[in-house]
Amino acid sequence: MAKEILYQKIANIIEEQIFSETLKIGDKLPSIRALQKLHNVSLNTIKQSFLELESKSLIESRPKSGFYVSKTSNRKLSIPSMNQLKQPEKQAAPEDLITKVFNSLNDNSITRFSLGVPDPSLLPIAKLNKGIIKAVQNLEETGSGYGPVQGSANLRRNLAKWSIVLEGKLTEDDFVITSGAMNAIYNCLMAVTKRGDTIAIESPVYFGIIQVAQTLGLTIIELPTHPTTGVDLDALKKVIHKIDVCCFMSNFSNPLGSLMPDESKIELVKLLTYHNIPLIEDDLYGNLFFGTTRPKPCKYFDEAGIVMWCGSISKTLAPGYRLGWVAPGKFKNKIIRQKLVETICTPSLYQEVIADFLEHGRYDHHLRNFRSTLYTNSLHFQRTIEDFFPENTKISQPQGGTFFWLELDKNIDTAVLYDTAIKQKIGFAPGRIFTHHNQYNNCLRLNFALEWKPKVEADLKRLGLLIKNAV
Amino acid sequence: MAKEILYQKIANIIEEQIFSETLKIGDKLPSIRALQKLHNVSLNTIKQSFLELESKSLIESRPKSGFYVSKTSNRKLSIPSMNQLKQPEKQAAPEDLITKVFNSLNDNSITRFSLGVPDPSLLPIAKLNKGIIKAVQNLEETGSGYGPVQGSANLRRNLAKWSIVLEGKLTEDDFVITSGAMNAIYNCLMAVTKRGDTIAIESPVYFGIIQVAQTLGLTIIELPTHPTTGVDLDALKKVIHKIDVCCFMSNFSNPLGSLMPDESKIELVKLLTYHNIPLIEDDLYGNLFFGTTRPKPCKYFDEAGIVMWCGSISKTLAPGYRLGWVAPGKFKNKIIRQKLVETICTPSLYQEVIADFLEHGRYDHHLRNFRSTLYTNSLHFQRTIEDFFPENTKISQPQGGTFFWLELDKNIDTAVLYDTAIKQKIGFAPGRIFTHHNQYNNCLRLNFALEWKPKVEADLKRLGLLIKNAV
Repeated sequence: MAKEILYQKIANIIEEQIFSETLKIGDKLPSIRALQKLHNVSLNTIKQSFLELESKSLIESRPKSGFYVSKTSNRKLSIPSMNQLKQPEKQAAPEDLITKVFNSLNDNSITRFSLGVPDPSLLPIAKLNKGIIKAVQNLEETGSGYGPVQGSANLRRNLAKWSIVLEGKLTEDDFVITSGAMNAIYNCLMAVTKRGDTIAIESPVYFGIIQVAQTLGLTIIELPTHPTTGVDLDALKKVIHKIDVCCFMSNFSNPLGSLMPDESKIELVKLLTYHNIPLIEDDLYGNLFFGTTRPKPCKYFDEAGIVMWCGSISKTLAPGYRLGWVAPGKFKNKIIRQKLVETICTPSLYQEVIADFLEHGRYDHHLRNFRSTLYTNSLHFQRTIEDFFPENTKISQPQGGTFFWLELDKNIDTAVLYDTAIKQKIGFAPGRIFTHHNQYNNCLRLNFALEWKPKVEADLKRLGLLIKNAV
Repeated sequence: MAKEILYQKIANIIEEQIFSETLKIGDKLPSIRALQKLHNVSLNTIKQSFLELESKSLIESRPKSGFYVSKTSNRKLSIPSMNQLKQPEKQAAPEDLITKVFNSLNDNSITRFSLGVPDPSLLPIAKLNKGIIKAVQNLEETGSGYGPVQGSANLRRNLAKWSIVLEGKLTEDDFVITSGAMNAIYNCLMAVTKRGDTIAIESPVYFGIIQVAQTLGLTIIELPTHPTTGVDLDALKKVIHKIDVCCFMSNFSNPLGSLMPDESKIELVKLLTYHNIPLIEDDLYGNLFFGTTRPKPCKYFDEAGIVMWCGSISKTLAPGYRLGWVAPGKFKNKIIRQKLVETICTPSLYQEVIADFLEHGRYDHHLRNFRSTLYTNSLHFQRTIEDFFPENTKISQPQGGTFFWLELDKNIDTAVLYDTAIKQKIGFAPGRIFTHHNQYNNCLRLNFALEWKPKVEADLKRLGLLIKNAV
């Protein structure tokens, strides 16, 4: 209790400095260590103060740099609370609801805040199509033949070169090409688990992870996950003896948009290395950072080879190419074997298109523009939600990725709201699909990787009105 | 004993008629029923006589037509014997040997009798490339987005129309598109089996089937398989109580080239329907028939929905497109679910290319030419083998497909022979890789889907010489 008062006291001091504009928007805060000495408290107390300020959106962390007074510190809404999981009420993933949301994706007249992929208008389709025609000419007959099981050497070489966040720790030999990140995760699970094993995942979590775990007969343990800092490691420690594999999104998770701090990543890798538990790291949003640098993946801190680092171009370039990869550490041979019996090899054409895109800097060029668009969009969305959604709406504060996670009034059932909204051609993803417990019923996920135009703005406002009416 | 003498006696009579040219090459034989009445014996006795004559390559069956004096009835070599499986000596698939054969595929200077795919010179690559460019233009941005899990409706519609051998029994709704036939089989196994289940397969069998079964933790029962008429149903009946799933190639099997007669297919489907055992039917060679009509698949006789009919374009058009399909009967929803968690969807582009190829008759046009080339090649290969291989060589008599199966002198180890041959840039597939028992060590598979040119002919002769030297 004393400790709680202490960190809140320090948080209050900083908060006052922000409101008095002693600390202005964009200012850098003193380092945690400096504050620790100043207040003569533990590092953890200062960290808790920062978390408190962050949860009020007053400050934001920037990877490798420190904490800053948040650009959006004038926001009115608080961020969602970390969930208390309703353990006894486990249920299956709500397949009907998922199917309903999926089916809406075929109707172009719907404003698809529901999507898990960027709007095509934000993607360099024409350049990709040119790339296909070039690849057809270069590949000639080899494009119709089998390629290596591990994937095109050209693509793997370019991936290794392009993965500068790993600081040269990976070579072309460390990658296996897959049919998208989902297929990478699937192959990892097939390689390291058997029916009846237990998997630890975040909560809320991308519903595809629940579906694949259930299909493979795995027991699922959902772990409380903080909207800003990711999976709760203390909760993981409590169940670690039951766990056979972990699957986490360390950077800009779907749906929360949380980003694990480096210290948490280091702690996680150490913990799992000690217990010899493989970590499937789904890092397909890692390049969509709003800060100055790409956050490191857990893979960076992995010395024992237990981290299987999964990525893809599905969220940044071309979902339908079904092109992803995994750097599977010590499980490489198992993954290659799994891929061989599952599908023999990956089609050559798209691999060469993407290799070329990487090699000539076109992917990085696109990512720079795309990140800038996403960040601007996130500000538009946030302002509109603050102005047109009920005041008790809570909203996540993603530092990257493409999603907002909203927690609405506890009396609202977003599965019911979905039916109302879809009649008005507005789609979103109801919270219930992101868990196999019976919860998040008053939450929803909004995709902001859309073109910000009057119709989208109007539909977002209308969604706010629908929610107000539903309260 | 009396019965054996009877069928041999009748076979001898017909053989004499052929040698005396009373029955000339290409003549149709009297029907089984007519001969039964003539000799006053059972139908089975006449069938056995025909099998005997067929095993000597004196006669050949043509689907839906009857038996004819074989065009190659002047062949010198007999067909391989049906194997007696060495039950106690079960071993793993010889992975090192498979890897060695696979690795040779990357060296274009090797004459690849070893291949399981047609030589690119026999494929309409230029037309396919044109198709890609057309599809890129038509698909525009939709080509980069997700498609339906079940696969492109356009492709499924064209597949249903094109599957005339099924006589309209299948609609677009009955197909699921997969990443090649191997992926279709994989998905079928994931849908209907669990670790520890038992699968019945042919012997010798395509090694990929052994690999996938072992990876999924299935117990394998290899069944004796006749080089002409396929899997031995009596052997299947003896173990039927142990079997959870069957996977057979009813038409032009790999590696034997056997073709199950319609009666056997009907009997098989009845048997499995009675025991409620799913049949994965790998029918990817069915369109490569040398006779007048495409043989029916077991699927044609399936009323209970237990047959999962798998096909692909990998052996006829473009192996590297990784495009196949399955008509999974009553297991459709399980297959779609499995595909969703494994990879979400199939890339759009190739699906549209192949749909267009089917729709405009270009696939049928190509198949006509391809079949004609394959049949001519098979005659060239057979004559060369008869003239340049040892006299005790036994050779299969495929009525379609792309393979010869050879049984050499029992003292020859084709795994050793492989090393000698590959030094001379001649590749073939050693018999040992087609079983998980320790046998077929004196057998080999030759792919004749190559361009028949002087170098190929010379290398085939050299292979014969190597074998003569090895005896």
